[in-house]
Amino acid sequence: MEKLKFDANGLITAVVQDDAEGEVLMVAWMNAKAIRLTKETGEAHFWSRSREEIWRKGSTSGNVMKVVKLLVDCDQDTILVQVNPSGPACHTGEVSCFFQELRD
Amino acid sequence: MEKLKFDANGLITAVVQDDAEGEVLMVAWMNAKAIRLTKETGEAHFWSRSREEIWRKGSTSGNVMKVVKLLVDCDQDTILVQVNPSGPACHTGEVSCFFQELRD
Repeated sequence: MEKLKFDANGLITAVVQDDAEGEVLMVAWMNAKAIRLTKETGEAHFWSRSREEIWRKGSTSGNVMKVVKLLVDCDQDTILVQVNPSGPACHTGEVSCFFQELRD
Repeated sequence: MEKLKFDANGLITAVVQDDAEGEVLMVAWMNAKAIRLTKETGEAHFWSRSREEIWRKGSTSGNVMKVVKLLVDCDQDTILVQVNPSGPACHTGEVSCFFQELRD
């Protein structure tokens, strides 16, 4: 993991994609510990910037995300987390957090 | 566009996805001008943090990205740009910038 480029806060952007459907589900942040926990458990973990704590996705909702593959981009500053989700990714109940078109 | 949450540098994360294939191609940054140019031209524009200038994707390589849809996430701080790419998204020649698995 030594090549990853974390930002000044020790975080890296994580894009979460449904492995089977291809749908982009959400974007969150990971720190080194979240990456380690994700690898160890096979379930997506993030860093919650609002709560300032490790966030096991689905701990509250039950909608955990089983990780199928972890990819890193060419400049090592973004992770793509391909998952098999147990339910909606979004707190609104939508499958994906990207459910609104960008309007003017 | 008034609801978008730009960061302290006036930027917002943009995830780029192949509209037809579903593949996540790259992650970049947009400012308000990049979003406006993207809407006006129908081609993906970003803000280059390294060059500190507007970056019309494909200006050099020819691999422009025709925008099919612009989506925003539930907390308005990430944009999903669904595109029809003219060629590889990655400067390495790979279709996607996410071509490497994350290793230990």
